[in-house]
Amino acid sequence: MAYNLLKGKKGIIFGALNEQSIAWKVAQRCHEEGAEIVLTNSPLALRMGELNKLAEECNAPVIPADVTSNEDVTNLITKSMEYFGGGVDFVLHSIGMSVNVRKNIPYTENNYDFTHKGLDISALSFHRVLQTAMKLDAINEWGSVVALTYIAAQRVFPDYNDMADNKAYLESIARNFGYQYGVKKHVRINTVSQSPTRTTAGNGVKGFDGFVNYAEKMSPLGNADANQCADYCVSLFSDLTKMVTMQNLFHDGGFSFTGVTAAVIEQMEK
Amino acid sequence: MAYNLLKGKKGIIFGALNEQSIAWKVAQRCHEEGAEIVLTNSPLALRMGELNKLAEECNAPVIPADVTSNEDVTNLITKSMEYFGGGVDFVLHSIGMSVNVRKNIPYTENNYDFTHKGLDISALSFHRVLQTAMKLDAINEWGSVVALTYIAAQRVFPDYNDMADNKAYLESIARNFGYQYGVKKHVRINTVSQSPTRTTAGNGVKGFDGFVNYAEKMSPLGNADANQCADYCVSLFSDLTKMVTMQNLFHDGGFSFTGVTAAVIEQMEK
Amino acid sequence: MAYNLLKGKKGIIFGALNEQSIAWKVAQRCHEEGAEIVLTNSPLALRMGELNKLAEECNAPVIPADVTSNEDVTNLITKSMEYFGGGVDFVLHSIGMSVNVRKNIPYTENNYDFTHKGLDISALSFHRVLQTAMKLDAINEWGSVVALTYIAAQRVFPDYNDMADNKAYLESIARNFGYQYGVKKHVRINTVSQSPTRTTAGNGVKGFDGFVNYAEKMSPLGNADANQCADYCVSLFSDLTKMVTMQNLFHDGGFSFTGVTAAVIEQMEK
Amino acid sequence: MAYNLLKGKKGIIFGALNEQSIAWKVAQRCHEEGAEIVLTNSPLALRMGELNKLAEECNAPVIPADVTSNEDVTNLITKSMEYFGGGVDFVLHSIGMSVNVRKNIPYTENNYDFTHKGLDISALSFHRVLQTAMKLDAINEWGSVVALTYIAAQRVFPDYNDMADNKAYLESIARNFGYQYGVKKHVRINTVSQSPTRTTAGNGVKGFDGFVNYAEKMSPLGNADANQCADYCVSLFSDLTKMVTMQNLFHDGGFSFTGVTAAVIEQMEK
Repeated sequence: MAYNLLKGKKGIIFGALNEQSIAWKVAQRCHEEGAEIVLTNSPLALRMGELNKLAEECNAPVIPADVTSNEDVTNLITKSMEYFGGGVDFVLHSIGMSVNVRKNIPYTENNYDFTHKGLDISALSFHRVLQTAMKLDAINEWGSVVALTYIAAQRVFPDYNDMADNKAYLESIARNFGYQYGVKKHVRINTVSQSPTRTTAGNGVKGFDGFVNYAEKMSPLGNADANQCADYCVSLFSDLTKMVTMQNLFHDGGFSFTGVTAAVIEQMEK
Repeated sequence: MAYNLLKGKKGIIFGALNEQSIAWKVAQRCHEEGAEIVLTNSPLALRMGELNKLAEECNAPVIPADVTSNEDVTNLITKSMEYFGGGVDFVLHSIGMSVNVRKNIPYTENNYDFTHKGLDISALSFHRVLQTAMKLDAINEWGSVVALTYIAAQRVFPDYNDMADNKAYLESIARNFGYQYGVKKHVRINTVSQSPTRTTAGNGVKGFDGFVNYAEKMSPLGNADANQCADYCVSLFSDLTKMVTMQNLFHDGGFSFTGVTAAVIEQMEK
Repeated sequence: MAYNLLKGKKGIIFGALNEQSIAWKVAQRCHEEGAEIVLTNSPLALRMGELNKLAEECNAPVIPADVTSNEDVTNLITKSMEYFGGGVDFVLHSIGMSVNVRKNIPYTENNYDFTHKGLDISALSFHRVLQTAMKLDAINEWGSVVALTYIAAQRVFPDYNDMADNKAYLESIARNFGYQYGVKKHVRINTVSQSPTRTTAGNGVKGFDGFVNYAEKMSPLGNADANQCADYCVSLFSDLTKMVTMQNLFHDGGFSFTGVTAAVIEQMEK
Repeated sequence: MAYNLLKGKKGIIFGALNEQSIAWKVAQRCHEEGAEIVLTNSPLALRMGELNKLAEECNAPVIPADVTSNEDVTNLITKSMEYFGGGVDFVLHSIGMSVNVRKNIPYTENNYDFTHKGLDISALSFHRVLQTAMKLDAINEWGSVVALTYIAAQRVFPDYNDMADNKAYLESIARNFGYQYGVKKHVRINTVSQSPTRTTAGNGVKGFDGFVNYAEKMSPLGNADANQCADYCVSLFSDLTKMVTMQNLFHDGGFSFTGVTAAVIEQMEK
């Protein structure tokens, strides 16, 4: 169902790869709600994924950008502003990658070159996008920025490896840049801490199925899926949530405030 | 602007007294968004306030209920179900009162009869509404319940007195009943932690103006007002936020995650 | 091992019943560390328990007090001050009881008379002790007060019932009275959030064994036991922790910041 | 006063520069409490500071190490183990530096090369020390590791710049490595979130005096000083706190849980 919640709004969506991607669903929902969007991902991801399909569906241009490059991000935002004929109203950051995870290097043996690389992609990219947007005055008054994160930033999930530290850093950027952009231009910045979701990125994490099943049993409403996350992001991009900023918002069926469930206790007794 | 976000939904709204009330604004916005509502308040509040005016505007019945009475709450919910011809989809709890505050008794000299009375009205009332609703199976699948709270539940605001403890208790009920109602019927329960707001209730707190000014200076976006709170509640009652539950959601222009602002530091240097 | 950490200090310890009690261990450790103590419990508990044995061991008077009675608490503190010839340096509050739990009434069907009674014993008793102490100027400058709590105040453990709400309220009192007593007399007030512990009180909670086993598997260091809790309380009563106040301190082997462990995932896969 | 709390224990202390340093005070107190220690800092800091004075006082060797170098950290830990004839029981990490801060680059204009450099020194250094220690099996069973941090990891202090993000990352490492080292060898890892303290590092932060005064007025017990921090660290290195791990422990006179004080409200009304 659509409500025209984002009618007249313009946004940039980072990180859609294929139909499993949360960013993909967010793009579809924003389009349904009347927004115009620009899609972006890294040149590599554009080759591997199916972003053109989404671009067609949403009538959106695709502008490649390596988020670890100031130049690429500047180009992306400049081109987006040209396309829209002005600033944007919302941004979704759905980007994360750990080289240590990819190479199956345990957390206690991390290679710090890989750690820096992962931080650059997963967290500093968010700062870079915001810094570039502020420099180019690219986000309109009362604009809304959301980055996706995971509860490993608060509690330990051993296999999440250095992505946990990256997400803690990402959430810190949301707070700190949220302050600066709020004071300067009433732009709000939040993170959405989503249930584990079976995406291409999620599947890269070792023992991810164990995660998902445990989370499902530990969430009174079950795990939130990508479509539901897209709905929630729409609410955060809309004018209904103008005063919500610098928050980490759990979208997880209650997982984060559940200590234990009857379902888990039962399983423990087996 | 209206989006038909609550079209076909039915709800009960506790605590509207006059045009300053947050609950008043929530009722208006829910009505605008297509919901049908029942309004309720205590018999005393109904005499003092202007609820009939709102009732007319929203085409809503008023059903009095003393929230400290199981009988009254049962009657309210039963009558609401009769009126709607079925269950409700959302509930707003916007109720709080401390006898110790009213009588200017400092926190360190609280009278415990008054403390119990305030807890009964401010916090146990929420449990009573939920318990009665569950018993009568009054909330539809995926229904949404919101109670208003204040950050004094997390950090000390000295003049807030025992309302701080009441709000901590209220938020605990949201979590605990949120688990139970989530598992049973996918009903979500959250609290919204609102900026200090100039309502009849707010004005009863000693030094409230000091609160409000400080909060304004400490919030990158400024204090959230009652209309904005109503918008946010609409988003939480809508289908866009189905997987958000057991959360305390700050709606405060960034106050909660701001340690200090340039504006406050400047004032401190005077 | 003893260090004379509490040499010359005087304290009141609430809630020792028998050798399983955390308060019992705390009393023993405080005595070992050179403190003089007064022991107290309700008249009923004194009849059921073995407090005299502990009193003898610690060379401490036992002063009965029903913590729901202003008179009893006033008498206790007055008598303690007479005994010590002055104020006290530390207080342990280890008291909790829910009538709803005792009567096996589920959280969603709680009887509110029982709820009020449980709150009075489990949480308001803490306020009453502090208020009475402040009135009688019974706690020395830089004194230290600790109350025991449980993580159910933050996250839902379904069988913990209304004790979760009581503990949330208790922790709020620690913050709010901690502010007041800190400003007034540099007295610090904290709660210690302890692993589930096999005490007489703990055993009263339905499914308690499930709790304990799950917590053990979810804690990188395992569950903290009563002796370790006593050690920790000693550190909080000592002069080493003078600037720690208004905190809820987890003493739980890491449970509170662990999202999942390999041990739990393994069990989930069975 | 000394209690022999650390008698027979051995530790490594990072980050003492001069008498203002918290690490300096921690070293002194550990020595007083009977510990043997190794002191370390970067070659540059060793030239600028007065560490030899402390070394003499504590009868401790100084082993230089650049914490951004795996080789240096390996050498430091290897040499320490040779010196002690075995593993260590505690480690203090008191290291932080932001190039962006030093160069007065505002947060919204950060240079990412500088950001990476600051992270490497301030946060990854902690991971490096722990990883190297684990590889060399350098920390004894039930050892204790503490890193110093600041509340800017939770809430925004605008002038703290990218050190806020570094501290968020540091605290995440404490949790994640705390899990791993806890499971493996019962080693506990915590961060201490200290009041703003007038050290050489603190004085480098723009508007630091404003910070300190505001924090003093916002803390019911006032700001904690370096000596008190040293006391607290001693308690965390002692056997009294064996089950405390993966925590961020506020040592701040109550600042963290105070929303506002009478003193601040008064100042706001000027």
